[in-house]
Amino acid sequence: MMKPLKSRTSDVTPVFVSELIETLTRRGLALFGRRDARGEVAQARDLAALGELLLSRRGEASGVTLAETLLAAFAAASAAERLTFLLALADRFGPDPAAVQRAIAAVLDISETGALEKLHAASEPRRQALFRRLNLAPGGTTALLRMREDLLGHLSDHPRLKLVDDDFVHLFSSWFNRGFLALRRIDWTTSPNILERIIRYEAVHAIRDWDDLRNRLAPEDRRCYGFFHPQLVDEPLIFVEVALTRDIPPAVGPLLDLARTPIAAAEATTAVFYSISNTQRGLGSVSFGNFLIKQVVEDLKRELPNVKTSVTLSPVPGFASWLAGQRKAEVAWLDAATQAELGLVDEHGWHADAGKAERVRAVLLPIAVRYLLAAKTAGGRPVDPVARFHLGNGARLERLNFLGDVSAKGLKQSHGLMVNYLYALDEIEVNHEAFAEKGVIAAAPAVRQLAPADKSSRSTVPAP
Amino acid sequence: MMKPLKSRTSDVTPVFVSELIETLTRRGLALFGRRDARGEVAQARDLAALGELLLSRRGEASGVTLAETLLAAFAAASAAERLTFLLALADRFGPDPAAVQRAIAAVLDISETGALEKLHAASEPRRQALFRRLNLAPGGTTALLRMREDLLGHLSDHPRLKLVDDDFVHLFSSWFNRGFLALRRIDWTTSPNILERIIRYEAVHAIRDWDDLRNRLAPEDRRCYGFFHPQLVDEPLIFVEVALTRDIPPAVGPLLDLARTPIAAAEATTAVFYSISNTQRGLGSVSFGNFLIKQVVEDLKRELPNVKTSVTLSPVPGFASWLAGQRKAEVAWLDAATQAELGLVDEHGWHADAGKAERVRAVLLPIAVRYLLAAKTAGGRPVDPVARFHLGNGARLERLNFLGDVSAKGLKQSHGLMVNYLYALDEIEVNHEAFAEKGVIAAAPAVRQLAPADKSSRSTVPAP
Amino acid sequence: MMKPLKSRTSDVTPVFVSELIETLTRRGLALFGRRDARGEVAQARDLAALGELLLSRRGEASGVTLAETLLAAFAAASAAERLTFLLALADRFGPDPAAVQRAIAAVLDISETGALEKLHAASEPRRQALFRRLNLAPGGTTALLRMREDLLGHLSDHPRLKLVDDDFVHLFSSWFNRGFLALRRIDWTTSPNILERIIRYEAVHAIRDWDDLRNRLAPEDRRCYGFFHPQLVDEPLIFVEVALTRDIPPAVGPLLDLARTPIAAAEATTAVFYSISNTQRGLGSVSFGNFLIKQVVEDLKRELPNVKTSVTLSPVPGFASWLAGQRKAEVAWLDAATQAELGLVDEHGWHADAGKAERVRAVLLPIAVRYLLAAKTAGGRPVDPVARFHLGNGARLERLNFLGDVSAKGLKQSHGLMVNYLYALDEIEVNHEAFAEKGVIAAAPAVRQLAPADKSSRSTVPAP
Amino acid sequence: MMKPLKSRTSDVTPVFVSELIETLTRRGLALFGRRDARGEVAQARDLAALGELLLSRRGEASGVTLAETLLAAFAAASAAERLTFLLALADRFGPDPAAVQRAIAAVLDISETGALEKLHAASEPRRQALFRRLNLAPGGTTALLRMREDLLGHLSDHPRLKLVDDDFVHLFSSWFNRGFLALRRIDWTTSPNILERIIRYEAVHAIRDWDDLRNRLAPEDRRCYGFFHPQLVDEPLIFVEVALTRDIPPAVGPLLDLARTPIAAAEATTAVFYSISNTQRGLGSVSFGNFLIKQVVEDLKRELPNVKTSVTLSPVPGFASWLAGQRKAEVAWLDAATQAELGLVDEHGWHADAGKAERVRAVLLPIAVRYLLAAKTAGGRPVDPVARFHLGNGARLERLNFLGDVSAKGLKQSHGLMVNYLYALDEIEVNHEAFAEKGVIAAAPAVRQLAPADKSSRSTVPAP
Repeated sequence: MMKPLKSRTSDVTPVFVSELIETLTRRGLALFGRRDARGEVAQARDLAALGELLLSRRGEASGVTLAETLLAAFAAASAAERLTFLLALADRFGPDPAAVQRAIAAVLDISETGALEKLHAASEPRRQALFRRLNLAPGGTTALLRMREDLLGHLSDHPRLKLVDDDFVHLFSSWFNRGFLALRRIDWTTSPNILERIIRYEAVHAIRDWDDLRNRLAPEDRRCYGFFHPQLVDEPLIFVEVALTRDIPPAVGPLLDLARTPIAAAEATTAVFYSISNTQRGLGSVSFGNFLIKQVVEDLKRELPNVKTSVTLSPVPGFASWLAGQRKAEVAWLDAATQAELGLVDEHGWHADAGKAERVRAVLLPIAVRYLLAAKTAGGRPVDPVARFHLGNGARLERLNFLGDVSAKGLKQSHGLMVNYLYALDEIEVNHEAFAEKGVIAAAPAVRQLAPADKSSRSTVPAP
Repeated sequence: MMKPLKSRTSDVTPVFVSELIETLTRRGLALFGRRDARGEVAQARDLAALGELLLSRRGEASGVTLAETLLAAFAAASAAERLTFLLALADRFGPDPAAVQRAIAAVLDISETGALEKLHAASEPRRQALFRRLNLAPGGTTALLRMREDLLGHLSDHPRLKLVDDDFVHLFSSWFNRGFLALRRIDWTTSPNILERIIRYEAVHAIRDWDDLRNRLAPEDRRCYGFFHPQLVDEPLIFVEVALTRDIPPAVGPLLDLARTPIAAAEATTAVFYSISNTQRGLGSVSFGNFLIKQVVEDLKRELPNVKTSVTLSPVPGFASWLAGQRKAEVAWLDAATQAELGLVDEHGWHADAGKAERVRAVLLPIAVRYLLAAKTAGGRPVDPVARFHLGNGARLERLNFLGDVSAKGLKQSHGLMVNYLYALDEIEVNHEAFAEKGVIAAAPAVRQLAPADKSSRSTVPAP
Repeated sequence: MMKPLKSRTSDVTPVFVSELIETLTRRGLALFGRRDARGEVAQARDLAALGELLLSRRGEASGVTLAETLLAAFAAASAAERLTFLLALADRFGPDPAAVQRAIAAVLDISETGALEKLHAASEPRRQALFRRLNLAPGGTTALLRMREDLLGHLSDHPRLKLVDDDFVHLFSSWFNRGFLALRRIDWTTSPNILERIIRYEAVHAIRDWDDLRNRLAPEDRRCYGFFHPQLVDEPLIFVEVALTRDIPPAVGPLLDLARTPIAAAEATTAVFYSISNTQRGLGSVSFGNFLIKQVVEDLKRELPNVKTSVTLSPVPGFASWLAGQRKAEVAWLDAATQAELGLVDEHGWHADAGKAERVRAVLLPIAVRYLLAAKTAGGRPVDPVARFHLGNGARLERLNFLGDVSAKGLKQSHGLMVNYLYALDEIEVNHEAFAEKGVIAAAPAVRQLAPADKSSRSTVPAP
Repeated sequence: MMKPLKSRTSDVTPVFVSELIETLTRRGLALFGRRDARGEVAQARDLAALGELLLSRRGEASGVTLAETLLAAFAAASAAERLTFLLALADRFGPDPAAVQRAIAAVLDISETGALEKLHAASEPRRQALFRRLNLAPGGTTALLRMREDLLGHLSDHPRLKLVDDDFVHLFSSWFNRGFLALRRIDWTTSPNILERIIRYEAVHAIRDWDDLRNRLAPEDRRCYGFFHPQLVDEPLIFVEVALTRDIPPAVGPLLDLARTPIAAAEATTAVFYSISNTQRGLGSVSFGNFLIKQVVEDLKRELPNVKTSVTLSPVPGFASWLAGQRKAEVAWLDAATQAELGLVDEHGWHADAGKAERVRAVLLPIAVRYLLAAKTAGGRPVDPVARFHLGNGARLERLNFLGDVSAKGLKQSHGLMVNYLYALDEIEVNHEAFAEKGVIAAAPAVRQLAPADKSSRSTVPAP
């Protein structure tokens, strides 16, 4: 026989609860945030107590009011109070141990139908139900996104918050599933309400001002698309910027040049995805970027039949810091001569000196191929996050562009390197499966030829 | 130590699966539904095998194609094949026993953090993941709604399908939560695409033709509102029809009269909810009717400050059959004299004979009060489904209307009786809580006064 | 020297006017329509007086109120009063004779620059300024359209109203010029507010009910387009119904059949304009039908590249009555044998008798060609109004369809005959010019071959 | 008997015309603008010839092509060629003298009905018909607006172009009549396409950048409205900027301060119209500003019942230059002491010196009252254009604000003076009529009290 599991449920005084419900009204929300004589701890206890209260009501009507109250109180609370509540979510709003114990006993009783399903229901973390109820308050979804952002900031210090975070990811994946997202074009007729956010959230190549924005939206050979969710009006969850060109571009500078001359959309043969940005930190680990790119590729092909090639122009954000680590560790494949040549990249202005640049190119490109094809995380995925994303989507590593981004940021994070990933619709599924199932990276022959000749690296590069 | 749980997972031949993925393309979907030499059973096994395959893929891209394939094959399958698949969902797509067993062992190990959460994850019925993946196919949500409709038809014959249905309800409750529903007014400028469905789905007072529909939508003193979901364009999930009047109306006939003269909306003091209809059988047990009524009440108050009263004019659909049962059972409180008088309602045209009608009224109204206030289900809820809905929302039983609906349907299901339920915004929460927590029914004093004087009934009528 | 022209301006008492402006308020509008002791004449005099008053004010603000007053009074007036006002427009609101006299004198003075322009301004009928001011009242444009409809009913009895009508046409042509019209598709998502009007105004093949309407709007192979004007919301000025087919259809019955099976739009090769209807009698002589057809032809070609042929399926509304006249007049080219055969069309059900129908066809088609190609109005245009419209647009008479419309209406007005006019974009301008400048009718060779062999008709048929 | 009028019609060679029509196609448009061996004159003659050709065609289809050709050729022509064409419009496209002569003869014949109307038709300048036809070309309206802008630049050098300009005004007044204009709110959700133009066209207080624009559109207590015309998409014809405040503001600086704190719209009691700008020079003399302000006043009262006061905060653009003229002319009412004190305004930074500012105020305000109330044009209207506009609309001169605008522009054009004009809905009509009919200026008593005491000025200030 099993011994009783330790109870982790709340010990909220019933009197407090029953009084509270009497006095809670919308007008009372503003008052709730105030400190009383007991100070901060009492307040934090109230948040958890409110959560218990919200879970205990059978009615939906008062539930919405309670949910609004809790969310408003959380928003008004101090950082310490909010953390206390988040920890209470981890500690006191997990599955109900007594219920789980009963369910386990039932599983062992072979005569009971559906015992496993009941065990599942019994072991549901109570915070899931709590989040569902909070989500019914006006603005509830947004408030929960903000709550998770808060939590993410505490995760490293309080690892048990991971339990709470898992529930956020589980629910957000359901609420923000692809079926509820609407693809909308963002252009120079789009509401400035939305455009402001594009300026704010652009994470790859910062938008300097409205002229820069206009230059990315208004010309005939520029496109921008975002996914929108019915609950977050005027707030794209993710957006991608696209240039329509005649060739696969090797550098981002000319694409963003305010003085460039647009081409007619009908003349374009290539769609270049040069920036993709998420806007909601609270939706981390809820992925929809791959859906966005693939849908845009399909829509553009329909609109512009001449566009045959869909390709990114991507940064290589982890390259420079990875290489610094390798140089410091003096790894075997970095011989002394190479180390010496690599020292050039520490000189200011090296990229503008043709001679130095050429010397850097000679050593840097083979190393970059090694970085992209062979450097893996513990889980066997590419170290570079952008590579991981596009290769995981089924794209192919198509071309390395030396000095593709000579902005300060570009030089700093990747010694100016940029990469084109190719989205070939008829290859995506095969590439994606091979990558997902076996870790195989699709790369163009020209890329592989750049790889260094030594055996140590070759052995870890998967065959095409 | 625990003994191994019996495995219920599928034994799909891997060869079949790996071949299948090679050949599946969109163009192949049409062919998939065909019978092969092995006939029906093979086909049904394919559906379950497709489900296993879909769950086994890590990639999202091929997953969408597989999801489309499965849904198309299900739609094309015969009734017997579909049932076989549904039963497979119950039998083979429940929680994974081996995983549960490991998770239970971990729960018993007191050193493991988050063991209960892991148990929850481990015990998730595998069909939930399957449904989530199916939902990503274009039209997936609608296809799953249809699949559940199918299932509901088999529930009484195959009780174990209840396990599958619970998962449908769990997921639909998440996907169709209130936050994703948009309230839209339906009027004489609304797309005929939608209006057709209003005609088709109106469940209370059938709409005869477009003139009848126009009469309910176009006049200034008529309103109609529906909840819409982003995944079901042009398809209201539920809609309510409202008449703006100067009094609480006692009968529905005059409200629907094509020849009546509208009043100015600004002159109305009363909003009468005279019909509320769900359109999706597949969303049974996923409730949003109460949200609809309450939001419309609030919106109308804002738009028309003179509207002070919000009330229904409702049928009493279970009354006549309940009364027939009581008469047949010769229950104690039905004395011989009353029985005799009740015989009048069996005479054709009794309601049009003033004398007979008056005699029926004398015996029928006290019985109707008993029916509404005291007749309860095993769970202690009112027997009448409409009463259950409105009282559960926090409305008050306000008035009984003898001969409120003298249509054939009205006479048949309730001997012509109609009821007004009052939605008083400042009472709703209290009523709702009292009903939800203690089963207390809110009723106007005038209604209670109609109740019969005998003690037997009084004792079961809850105190106000 | 010129003698003074007879004055035709109004002799309204100034006192009346100055009093009136004091008392006119919006609230007073309702009272204005009432009869006073002086009765009808006084009222009618008031309308004209109001017109004078409106013309005399320099201010725009009070002008709008006065315009509203006059239009409301006109709408409330009796038929006789309205006629009196219309005649006053003809008699007293023409050009100001004194001003014209001065302007003529200036024309004769050679030293005066712009004298002709001043003469033009001086001779402007005063009602034009009146109509412009009335047009500024809310709903003014619609009220003026209704006023002209009124006028058109009196035109034959009061020929001098033609002067007023010319001014209506002049102003309406300006206000409803092509540039202000928006082409909008009308389909099964269009507001019933508009669809009701389609049902009401369809002038060629009456729409029986909403099912009939749905059959013309919802299927993939049906289209409807209308021109809308910013001042007449929800009121198409003109609309055209189009069927997408695989061939040029010979009969209208199958097109309108509720039981037919639609084809995919992408499979259609032919756009068939089978009905075009004006909705505003008040816009008679203000033409935009040709713009509508041509724009729809162009839009369809863009949307559906497979549609190569644009053609009408048109009635021949004047044929039967014209032929009756010819038979009665016993014109030379109708020989006794033909006369005898033509007698068949007077027999009930002749068209359903294959033998009789064949005999009618033999005599009727050559006569129909004569009717369409050679029967001309005094102005040298085709007698048939539909032929006049399409040929005037540059279409070509492509084919005669015997028994194309065997409805009662079709048999009555054209003995069942229907006609296809072909809109070939590369021929339209040449055809149109030839028709407009020289009266040349474009007709397919196969049509001309049907023409009778006698010389009398040939001589009047223009060479191709 | 009248002698023949001198013919001013064109002598275009018919051969040229008939050849031209053969070769004109859309594809030919690009070629048309080229110079031939004959050079500029030939080209200019071609424009007029094209005009003649366009007038001579009966067909509408080829007419549209010709209209496009002429407009494109005009746009491509040199400035000299364009002027030649504009002068041809004045000289050769006036009324047809021969037709006028016949019409005059008919007027003298008393037996002819409608002779005056015929005279009107006969004397219509032929360019009116030409402009109507040009208007049918795609983009025709905009092209004609640009053509008039061109003309306005030549008006002072070529006074006879006034004849042409009168026809533009006549037609534009019809095409842009109030009934065709749609009032739309412009806010922070409006398309940047439109917002760019707001920045460009703001004529009163220049908008520095997008932050400045946001500050005028996004806060709850700011509004902007414009009139739009169906032919000019994304192009407001006129727009007004409004601040919602708690008082009548004395200065514009605080209204435009980026750092100010907005108030809740519901708390505002006053709507302040602080900027109104026309965007189309080509619509000069076609007035709709008064309609815009009045409609916004009415709409705001409906939306925000607490807004009881509608007032402008206006510049006094002509004050400084008028005063400079008076000082130079040493007019009688400027005594030596005043002249001396006025010298202060010529000192840099006088307004920031409290002592100097106070001395300037003492002399400047009485003079400003004189300027606003007594300084009149030859036509008896106020000299100040802004005063003329608002007083003409029926507003009341409510308050003078010393140092209301201390920007460089404000100091330069009005020594910093600003004015509030009050729009009181119940006074507007009376004020407007009194102003329009008798030149009476409505002014608040407090303004009149500021007026100087000398008799000379009093005598010219109209009584209230």
